[in-house]
Amino acid sequence: MPVKTTLSDRARLMPASPIRRLAPLAAAARKAGKTIYALNIGQPDIATPRVILDRLRSYDAAFIPYGPSQGLPEFIEALRVYYRGVGLELAAEDLFVTTAGSEAILFVLGAICDPGDEVLVFEPFYTNYNGFSAMVGVRPVPVTTRAEDGYHLPSRAAIERAIGPKTRALLICSPNNPTGTVYTDQEMAMLAAICRDRGLYLIADEVYREFVYDGATHHSALTLPGMDDLVVVVDSVSKRYSLCGVRIGNVVSKNRELMDALLRFGQARLCPPTLGQYACTALTEVPKSYIQGVIAEYGRRRDLVFDALAGIEGVVVRKPEGAFYLCARLPVDDTNAFAEFLVRDFDLGGETVMIAPADGFYATPGLGRDEVRLAYVLEEKKLKRAMEIFALAMTAYRAR
Amino acid sequence: MPVKTTLSDRARLMPASPIRRLAPLAAAARKAGKTIYALNIGQPDIATPRVILDRLRSYDAAFIPYGPSQGLPEFIEALRVYYRGVGLELAAEDLFVTTAGSEAILFVLGAICDPGDEVLVFEPFYTNYNGFSAMVGVRPVPVTTRAEDGYHLPSRAAIERAIGPKTRALLICSPNNPTGTVYTDQEMAMLAAICRDRGLYLIADEVYREFVYDGATHHSALTLPGMDDLVVVVDSVSKRYSLCGVRIGNVVSKNRELMDALLRFGQARLCPPTLGQYACTALTEVPKSYIQGVIAEYGRRRDLVFDALAGIEGVVVRKPEGAFYLCARLPVDDTNAFAEFLVRDFDLGGETVMIAPADGFYATPGLGRDEVRLAYVLEEKKLKRAMEIFALAMTAYRAR
Repeated sequence: MPVKTTLSDRARLMPASPIRRLAPLAAAARKAGKTIYALNIGQPDIATPRVILDRLRSYDAAFIPYGPSQGLPEFIEALRVYYRGVGLELAAEDLFVTTAGSEAILFVLGAICDPGDEVLVFEPFYTNYNGFSAMVGVRPVPVTTRAEDGYHLPSRAAIERAIGPKTRALLICSPNNPTGTVYTDQEMAMLAAICRDRGLYLIADEVYREFVYDGATHHSALTLPGMDDLVVVVDSVSKRYSLCGVRIGNVVSKNRELMDALLRFGQARLCPPTLGQYACTALTEVPKSYIQGVIAEYGRRRDLVFDALAGIEGVVVRKPEGAFYLCARLPVDDTNAFAEFLVRDFDLGGETVMIAPADGFYATPGLGRDEVRLAYVLEEKKLKRAMEIFALAMTAYRAR
Repeated sequence: MPVKTTLSDRARLMPASPIRRLAPLAAAARKAGKTIYALNIGQPDIATPRVILDRLRSYDAAFIPYGPSQGLPEFIEALRVYYRGVGLELAAEDLFVTTAGSEAILFVLGAICDPGDEVLVFEPFYTNYNGFSAMVGVRPVPVTTRAEDGYHLPSRAAIERAIGPKTRALLICSPNNPTGTVYTDQEMAMLAAICRDRGLYLIADEVYREFVYDGATHHSALTLPGMDDLVVVVDSVSKRYSLCGVRIGNVVSKNRELMDALLRFGQARLCPPTLGQYACTALTEVPKSYIQGVIAEYGRRRDLVFDALAGIEGVVVRKPEGAFYLCARLPVDDTNAFAEFLVRDFDLGGETVMIAPADGFYATPGLGRDEVRLAYVLEEKKLKRAMEIFALAMTAYRAR
C-alpha cells in the first residue's frame, strides 16, 4: 500500500489572504448581478502615466529575452533619476530590481534570517508579511499599535521588550499599509537608535513614499544617520504609477554584503519581468504634476472616507497621514461576519461594498476582530456612494 | 558599541549562478571590443510568434492592475487550449500561473517540503534548483548520471539507495536541462513506481516539452497512471515562444490539497505579471507550423554542435534527444579555467565563446569539473563559427 503523501507544515501554516479570501463570495454576488465597490484591495484606479504605457506599446524587439538578474541597466538608471528627484543620491550598486515589492521582502527576509529567526512587526501590519515569513521560516513578532493612537508607535521600552536573542530586524511600513500612519521623524530616530544599539536591520517598506497629505513630507529611512549597513528599503512602482500588474519593485541598501547576497538570490530566479522594466524606463519622463495630481486626488478621497466614518456612531478612527488606506474600529463584534454580510446579504439598489477585516493584519490572536481596513482607491463619486452603502449596511447589520 | 550584523546561513549557502558567474569577465571583454558567442545561457534567439507580440502592443487599458493570484482567467483558458493541443485535457483548477518556472519550483518545493527535508535530483541538474532549495531550506540529494550513458537514469536500486526518511519528492527535468536527455517511457514508469511505492511526489519540469528531435515524442508525467495525487508538473512559456523575459510559468497538478496550498503561497505575492499573461492569451492563435519550425531549427543546431564536438579528440559526448543543451566531457582538468581562458585570453579575429562549466550542475563535490554545458541557441551560421572558435581554443588551451 502506498504511503500517504502530505504537504509541508509550511504549507499548512501559509495563511490565506484576508484581503482576497472574500473573493469567491464576491464572485458569486457579481454573478448574481450585484455591483460591488471594492474597498478591500489596494488596486488604484488612477491612470498610469501615458509615457509609460506608450513606451510599453513601442516594444519592437523580435522576442522578449532574459534581462540581468540585478535588473535592466537602463531601468536602474531610470530609478536613480527617480530617487534623485526625491532627494536620494544612489549608486547603481545600491539598487536591486525585484519582481515587485513582494519578492523584495521575500529575498530580504531570506538573506537576513534563518528558519526560526524573528522579525519585529508593528501590528496591524501588511498581511502578506505573514506569507513571506512562512515561506522562509521566519517568525513575525508583533508589537501592537492602537487605533486610539492613530496606530503610531509605542514607547522604546515597549518595543525593546519584544526583542529577543533570535530577533534579526525591525520591519516597518511608512506611510503604512494598512493604517495610513506616517511615522514622525522622532519615531524614525527612535527606531534607528534601537537598531544601532541592538545590531538589528531596519527593513523599511516605502512603497507609499509619495502618498502623504496636508503638505507633509516623508523622510526615507535612507536618510537616517549612521545606518548605512542597517537600512534596507523595499520599494515598488506598483502604487506610485498604478502599475500593480507589472510586478516591478526594488531593494535599496548600501550594505554591500547584503546586496551581493540578494544578487545570488536573484540569479536563482534569473531576472525580474523584462516588459515592466522596459515600460518603466520612461519614468524619467513622468512630469512632476502627475504625482502631485495623484496626491491631491487621494487627499480628497481620504477626507471623504474619514468624514464618512467619523460620522458613524461608535466608529473609532483617527485621520491618517498617508498611503491610501485607513483602519477603523467598528461597533461590531466581528468584522469578518460584517464583511460577509455586506457581500452576501446586503445591497442598496443592487450595490454593495467589499471591505478587508483587520484581524488578518494582526499576529496576536484575537486582536483586530472589530477593526477593518478600507482602501480609498475609487473615484470620489463611487467612493461617496460606497460610504453611503457602508453606513446604511452597518445600521442594518446592527439592527438584525 | 553596536553589535555587528550578519547575514543568514541561507544567504551564505545561496550559490552564485554558474551560468552567470562569468558575466563580469564577459562584460570586460565586450568593453574591450571582443565579440562573444554566448553558449552559456539558454536564451533562445528565435522570434516570438507575432500574434503574441501584437497582443502585447494592443494593451489599451488606462492602467495595469493586479490580476487574480491563480492567474488571469483568460490566460488559464488559453493554457487549457494549449494543453489540449499536446493531448492533455485539464480543468482550470488543475492550473496555477506563476512568475515563470522559477516561482513554480520555489512554491512547489515550499508546499511539499519543510526545512531539512530532501528532494532527489539527477545530477547534472538545472543549477537553479540549488538556489530554490536554499531559499526554502530543502536539501537536494544527488543521484549521479554519466556522460557515457547519455545521462540516462541509473538502476532503480541505485535511485532507491538515495531515498531516506526525509525524502519528499523526486525532481526531474525531461527533456533535460543541462544534458538534453529525454527519459524513455520505461524510465518514466520506473520513476512512477518508485514514487507510488514510497509515497513520494514526482515533480516534473517539462518546460522543454516540445523540444524533442528525430521525430521522437515526449510523454508528460501527467500521463502516468495512478499518479494523480503525486505528479506535479512545472511549466513555462519562456523557451517555447522565446518569452524568457515575460516571467510566466505555471504548475499543473490534480492534487487539490497541493493546489490549494499553492494558491495561498500565491496570494502572498498577489499575482504573476499581468502583461506577460495578457500577451500570452494569444497563444491559442499560434499556428502549429511555428513550433514545428522551431524544432526543425533546433534539430539542425543540435546536429551541428554535436558533430563539431564529436570531431574534437578526447571529447566524450552522446547525441542528446531534446531541449537545446548538451553536456560533454572535455579533455581538460577544469572547465572553469577553460571558460575563463576563452573569455579573457582567447580570441579568433576578435571573437570568442562563452560556455557554462558543468560543476555547478552537480551537487556531489568534485564531479563535473571536466564537463561543460553548451546551449545551442544561436543561428546556424553563428553557431558554426562559435564551434570553430571552440575547437581552436581547446587546442590552444591544451598547448599552453
